[in-house]
Amino acid sequence: MSLTVNFGYALSKKLAGHGISNEMLKPALERTAKALDHIRTERGANKLPYLDLPEDGKTKAACKELADKYDGYENFLLSGIGGSSLGPLAIFNALGHPLHNMLSGAKRKNHPRFFALDNVDPVQVDALFNFCKPEKTVYNIISKSGATAETASASLIIFDLLKKRMGNDWKKNIVCTTDPTSGDLRKLCNDEKLQTLPLHSGVGGRFSVLTPVGLFPSYCLGFDVDAMLAGAAEMRERCLDSDVQKNPAAQMAALLYLFDSTQHKKMHVMMAYANGLYGMADWFRQLWAESLGKELDNEGRVVNVGPTPLKALGATDQHSQVQLYIEGPYDKVFLFLECKKFGKRVKLPELYDNVSSLNYLGGQTMNKLIAAEFAATREALAQRGRPSITITFPEIDAHAVGEFFMLWEMTTSLAGALYRINPYDQPGVELGKQLTYGLMGRAGFEDKAKGIKV
Amino acid sequence: MSLTVNFGYALSKKLAGHGISNEMLKPALERTAKALDHIRTERGANKLPYLDLPEDGKTKAACKELADKYDGYENFLLSGIGGSSLGPLAIFNALGHPLHNMLSGAKRKNHPRFFALDNVDPVQVDALFNFCKPEKTVYNIISKSGATAETASASLIIFDLLKKRMGNDWKKNIVCTTDPTSGDLRKLCNDEKLQTLPLHSGVGGRFSVLTPVGLFPSYCLGFDVDAMLAGAAEMRERCLDSDVQKNPAAQMAALLYLFDSTQHKKMHVMMAYANGLYGMADWFRQLWAESLGKELDNEGRVVNVGPTPLKALGATDQHSQVQLYIEGPYDKVFLFLECKKFGKRVKLPELYDNVSSLNYLGGQTMNKLIAAEFAATREALAQRGRPSITITFPEIDAHAVGEFFMLWEMTTSLAGALYRINPYDQPGVELGKQLTYGLMGRAGFEDKAKGIKV
Repeated sequence: MSLTVNFGYALSKKLAGHGISNEMLKPALERTAKALDHIRTERGANKLPYLDLPEDGKTKAACKELADKYDGYENFLLSGIGGSSLGPLAIFNALGHPLHNMLSGAKRKNHPRFFALDNVDPVQVDALFNFCKPEKTVYNIISKSGATAETASASLIIFDLLKKRMGNDWKKNIVCTTDPTSGDLRKLCNDEKLQTLPLHSGVGGRFSVLTPVGLFPSYCLGFDVDAMLAGAAEMRERCLDSDVQKNPAAQMAALLYLFDSTQHKKMHVMMAYANGLYGMADWFRQLWAESLGKELDNEGRVVNVGPTPLKALGATDQHSQVQLYIEGPYDKVFLFLECKKFGKRVKLPELYDNVSSLNYLGGQTMNKLIAAEFAATREALAQRGRPSITITFPEIDAHAVGEFFMLWEMTTSLAGALYRINPYDQPGVELGKQLTYGLMGRAGFEDKAKGIKV
Repeated sequence: MSLTVNFGYALSKKLAGHGISNEMLKPALERTAKALDHIRTERGANKLPYLDLPEDGKTKAACKELADKYDGYENFLLSGIGGSSLGPLAIFNALGHPLHNMLSGAKRKNHPRFFALDNVDPVQVDALFNFCKPEKTVYNIISKSGATAETASASLIIFDLLKKRMGNDWKKNIVCTTDPTSGDLRKLCNDEKLQTLPLHSGVGGRFSVLTPVGLFPSYCLGFDVDAMLAGAAEMRERCLDSDVQKNPAAQMAALLYLFDSTQHKKMHVMMAYANGLYGMADWFRQLWAESLGKELDNEGRVVNVGPTPLKALGATDQHSQVQLYIEGPYDKVFLFLECKKFGKRVKLPELYDNVSSLNYLGGQTMNKLIAAEFAATREALAQRGRPSITITFPEIDAHAVGEFFMLWEMTTSLAGALYRINPYDQPGVELGKQLTYGLMGRAGFEDKAKGIKV
């Protein structure tokens, strides 16, 4: 069973002038086909290593081996931000029990609770360090360079805490996922002989979910890593298909690019109709925004492009956002995530036969209700000229999760080519980092923050 | 101590042409002043009851009295969606411990765990009902009409479960918050003699957080309801000030309206620099989208207006969204939520004096780091011509939370006047509801969903 993608509600015949016509789509798909050729060439020259992560058995084995050491641990505390936390959080959200962290050890099958320390909020930080007993917690510090101030500051707390609480054993519960050869964190790990996992050179943070960034936590939580990687590999083949009519990444990239560039639909709303897929929308939000939001194109011209990704949750946000979606400006396209088969079936009891707002529900299932809510919302949007694309998960499992990651990573590479920008850098965040260093008094940055009040 | 609002980074002198000039602001503020007069008139005619909720001592006492009955209960399960859950969730997020639901009863001071059943996801529903022991759980069903399919279906499960598990005592743990006189849920409550709290007539869901919708859960969780209402009342007076230069709601409404209508900055990004304020952004997201996203203006002309609210979290989203914010299209204005004093102070240990990416942090605090991250990000955005408005919480407490709610409710009323639309209805969601009823076979709606496949 594989993900299916339905582009029907994006095309103009269903949308009375608001969709994309075949005449518009054709030249965009031709450009996409050329971009695909380029991707194949770059892959051959080892310039797109993210594509070949599913076959990296050596790294996978290293993750598994380390994870086995933490069998029976109570807590997994991931310290990382951005691409170092969004992938693992999405996996945990999709494949974990909704109340995983509150279940007893037995009900968790002795897998650890999972926490992401992904901010520098003092209240959150204090709460997490107080909750997790160091002796029973594995601390996974994830930072490619080690220079990220947020992760660096959390690392100081982790090192200090473990040195104080565990003495000579202080390194036992620390695993650092970082660049295999360069960076401050790598150097520190080498000097201190800390346990490490490699964050592949050439794979940027937002494309790193299938490196140890995502694999090590997945093993610790008991998720099916092999299925996830197999799903990613299968999707890669579908997205390398030269027949762009059958290639979901090519269709996706071409349509979303056209909605932005020709119809001013600059907001791409990913609306998950399953709580377990909401984390996927958060992961997508970084990938799409940071990859495509760029000031300069490949020729150095100022273009200031980039669609804005939004996340939404169905049916919940029908009572929050859909009024705007359906009546507001024609500035959005919707990316629905549908789940065909949920892990549970919930029957609705037959009660109050005389109450017309209740009696039609009795005897049916909540599964049918959420499916109806989704179908009704998509249809209502279409009737009001609002286009959408639907990605259907046969069920929410590791295979589908792997497919989803690869689908969007490859769509992003192709969209980068259509926008004529570099989807792999993030030059815009540099200024803020330097100002932060300046405000914190880091050597060499003292002058940067003059005149800024904190 | 009160909320402060800084509009300096929205004005053109700091933003090299991308902000709002005083010449543009003046006529908009004059229109806002007229809208304020109208609000005063409507309030006098009892047409805007949300403004007077802080003085409704009778309802407050009813909430307190009922809450006392559930002293020592293990769980509070709120069943509601949209305006019936976003307010309570925002309060819980702001005033509760970050890991509240995972703490022992003693550490929670015997306040119940808090869960919101705000979707019809079968996996979520199954998990919550399995986790919460009915005998030790208070079920708060919130629905103005009782007709909302999502809440109606959850109610069926709750009624059935409690009848089976608690026999003659089945009503003991149910509290329904609903319209005092009309609707299916009111009728059922009257027939069955269920315990109820009034959801004031004339107060719409998204303006209802200071009704029992927010007050009853707040009492059960031990939050300071009096301070919240006092904060709201104080902010109301500030936002009724005829001197619009001193009136934060007037300034906010005028500026945000101008950014949308004259500079195509249609995305209003609320970025909270505190985990505890992220729920506020979610609450705001409904209020702003559903109130202002409208097809028709007050004269019935097709206008399709409405800014799109987005939520973001600092510092986390600096590593996800800020690249787009700073280099992408000039289509956003930022609403920062800043916290001056966090409930905890976290010191950073001095370690690794030889590592340049760590040594500048040692001896400082995480509190200073998050403040620096915020100041740096706001400054970097401004240097790149991206405007922002900052709302500063002296600390995150019930008083400030009450102020925040009232500030945005009144800003919304004023913005509705500037957009010349009705901010209190939501006609666009009707079609989707009817299609859902049709798909679920509700009597009278059978024909609505013909041809839609589920």
